[in-house]
Amino acid sequence: MSLILTFLGKGGSGRTTIALAAAKKMASSGSKVLLIGQDPSPSWGMLVGASPSPSPVQIAANLSVVQQQTTLLLERSWDEIKDLESQYLRSPTLKNIYGQELGVLPGMDQALALNSIREYDKTGDYDVIIYDGSGDLATLRTFGIPEVFSWYIRRFRQVLTESDIGKILSPFIQPITSAILNVSWTADDLVNKPSNEANDILDQGRKALANPNRIRAYLVTTDDPVAVTQAKYLWGSAQQIGLTVAGVILNQSELTDTLAAEFAPLSLTSVPSRIGEDWQAVINALPNFQEGVNAPKPLTIEIASNQVRVFLPGLAKNQVKLTQSGPELTIEAGDQRRNIDVPESLRGKPVKGAKFLEGYLIISF
Amino acid sequence: MSLILTFLGKGGSGRTTIALAAAKKMASSGSKVLLIGQDPSPSWGMLVGASPSPSPVQIAANLSVVQQQTTLLLERSWDEIKDLESQYLRSPTLKNIYGQELGVLPGMDQALALNSIREYDKTGDYDVIIYDGSGDLATLRTFGIPEVFSWYIRRFRQVLTESDIGKILSPFIQPITSAILNVSWTADDLVNKPSNEANDILDQGRKALANPNRIRAYLVTTDDPVAVTQAKYLWGSAQQIGLTVAGVILNQSELTDTLAAEFAPLSLTSVPSRIGEDWQAVINALPNFQEGVNAPKPLTIEIASNQVRVFLPGLAKNQVKLTQSGPELTIEAGDQRRNIDVPESLRGKPVKGAKFLEGYLIISF
Repeated sequence: MSLILTFLGKGGSGRTTIALAAAKKMASSGSKVLLIGQDPSPSWGMLVGASPSPSPVQIAANLSVVQQQTTLLLERSWDEIKDLESQYLRSPTLKNIYGQELGVLPGMDQALALNSIREYDKTGDYDVIIYDGSGDLATLRTFGIPEVFSWYIRRFRQVLTESDIGKILSPFIQPITSAILNVSWTADDLVNKPSNEANDILDQGRKALANPNRIRAYLVTTDDPVAVTQAKYLWGSAQQIGLTVAGVILNQSELTDTLAAEFAPLSLTSVPSRIGEDWQAVINALPNFQEGVNAPKPLTIEIASNQVRVFLPGLAKNQVKLTQSGPELTIEAGDQRRNIDVPESLRGKPVKGAKFLEGYLIISF
Repeated sequence: MSLILTFLGKGGSGRTTIALAAAKKMASSGSKVLLIGQDPSPSWGMLVGASPSPSPVQIAANLSVVQQQTTLLLERSWDEIKDLESQYLRSPTLKNIYGQELGVLPGMDQALALNSIREYDKTGDYDVIIYDGSGDLATLRTFGIPEVFSWYIRRFRQVLTESDIGKILSPFIQPITSAILNVSWTADDLVNKPSNEANDILDQGRKALANPNRIRAYLVTTDDPVAVTQAKYLWGSAQQIGLTVAGVILNQSELTDTLAAEFAPLSLTSVPSRIGEDWQAVINALPNFQEGVNAPKPLTIEIASNQVRVFLPGLAKNQVKLTQSGPELTIEAGDQRRNIDVPESLRGKPVKGAKFLEGYLIISF
C-alpha cells in the first residue's frame, strides 16, 4: 500500500513545483515514488522537466511520472465494462460501441483519476504516490467520491426498496432477468447484489481516506492574501470529505510567523524560490512527508456525551449550515454536503444545539 | 439572448481580473452585464472586490455578479426533477429524498453551471454574460456537454434499439409503464419520447456554441513559457468542442510582437498591470469584446471536394489522432474525443488521407 499525497492551493501558487520537489525528496531518501499529473497539457511536462506519457516513465532513480489522459483511461474502463457485460448477459449489446469513440463528459476525469490512483496503489510498485491534480474543489470532489457515492447508494436503495415502484417491478424482474441475464436473479438480488463489489471498493476508499497515514493533503500558498484565503477555504473544505490536511507550505515568502498563526495548529514550512535547475534548497526546506501526522481528526463521535465534533477550520460560522431533513445529519460547508450516518443510539434524535468553538462545530443531541 | 464570454488560461495568469475588467468595460459602455464566478471560495469575492452571493447582486451600474454554489443549484434542480416525477408517476418515489441532503459528485458542478448559464441567458436580463470558470479543460468539458451528450444519446439509442435486449424488453414495457406511469407508453416511446425535450435543449446548446456571436472564448496568458504553452493547448482544445477562440490577452508583459506570432492569426492585446484600484488603464487596453469576430471556424465540411477541414491550432501533429471505429469520424486531441457526424454522402466512406496544414487537419474521403 502506498502513501498517497496531494497538494491543495490556488492556481499559480506553485503546487506542481512543490509536488515535484516532494517527489524528488522522497525518491532520494530511497522511497519508490510515482508523480501523477492530472493536467494533460504539454505545459505540465515543462513544469516537471520531463516528457511524461500516459504510462509511468522513470525520470530518475526511484522516481516515475505519469500524465493522466482521460480519453485513454476511459477506453480501458470501457473494455472492462464490456468484459463484465459479456460475462452476465446472454447477448451482449455494448460490444458494438468502441472505447475509441467515447467522448468525455464532466466528472469522468475525476472518477477515472481516482480509479487509476487506486490501481497504481494496488500494484504495490510505489511507496509513495503524489497526485498533482487541479488542487481545488475538483480534487476534493475526486477524493470525495467514495463518501458521497456510498451515500447515494445507501439512500436511494432504501427509498426504492420501500417504494411502490419497487413493489410493482418485483413480478417482472424474474422473467426479464432470466431472459436477459445468464443467471436468475430476484428483485432482492437486483437491489443488493450488483452493488456489493462496488460497495467494497467504495468502503476501501472511505477507509483509506479516513486514515492520514494512507492519504493526506498539504496546503500550498504564497503570501498573496487571495492565495491565503483560498488555502484556508480548502483546508476547511477538505474536512468535509474526511481528508486530513497535514501541513502548510509557504512558497516564496518569508512572512512565516504572520501566516503560521492563520493556519494554527498546522505546521507551516517556508520554502525558498528555486534558482534555475537547483532543487536542493527547495528539497531541504520541505517537511518530512513520511513522518506520522498529528493533525486534528475531521470527525469525532462521542457517544457517552451525545456529541458529534466536526473539525471545520478556515471557514466562518456563516459558511456552515446544519440540516436534519433526511435520516442523517447533513453538514453543508465549502460547497459540499456531508451526510453523517450517526450511531444507532443517536439516529433520529433531534439536534439540541450546535456551536462553533476553536475551529470545531460541536453538535449536541 | 446574451453574448456569452469566457476566458481560458493557466491558473494565476490573471483570468478573473481580466474577466472583471471586461465586465466593467462593457457595463460602462451601456450593456447589462452578469459576471458568473464558478469558484465558491471567498477568495473570488476578494478578487472581484465585492460580496457576491448565489443570486445576482448589482455592484455597479449595469453590472451584476453571482457566485455559483453547486449545493444550492443541485437543490433547485432536484425540486424540478421531483416535480416532473410527480407529473408522470402514479406514486412518486423521489419525494422522500430532500434536495438539502444531496451530496455533490464530480461532474455536477459543470452540468449545473451550464444549466444556470442557460437560465440566466433565457431571462433576457443581460446583454452579456461572462463566465469565470476554472479556465482549463474543466471549462471546455462544461461547454462541451451538449455536443458530447448528444452523441451518447444518438449512439446508445441506436445500439439499444437494434439489440436483443431491446427486443426482449419490448413485451414488458407496456405492462410495467402502465402500472408505474400515469400514461401508456410503448417501447418505441420509451426510447424516443423522454429524450425529446432534453434533445431540444442540447440542440440549442450546440447551435449557440457553434455561433461565435453567441458564445466565444479569449485566451489569457502572461509571457511565462509555461502559461503560453498552456494557452496554446487550450486554443486547440477549444476547437474540439466547437468553441471559437476570438483573441489573446497578454497580461502584464510587453513581449507583444514575439507572442503575437505564436498565436497568429488571432489578434493579441497587451494589457498593463493594474495599479491599486485604478482599473481604467486595464479597461482601455482591452479589445472591443462586442465587435464581430473574424476567427477561423472550428469545422468546415466541403461536400464538393469530399473534405473535412478541422481547425486545430496550438497542437502538434503527434497530439492529434484520427479514428474511424464507429459509424462516425473520431478526432482525438486535447484529451477530448470529437465525433463528427459527416453528411450522408460521406458516411461509411473510408478516409483516404489526412494532413496537417497551417493549423488545419484536412481529411479527405
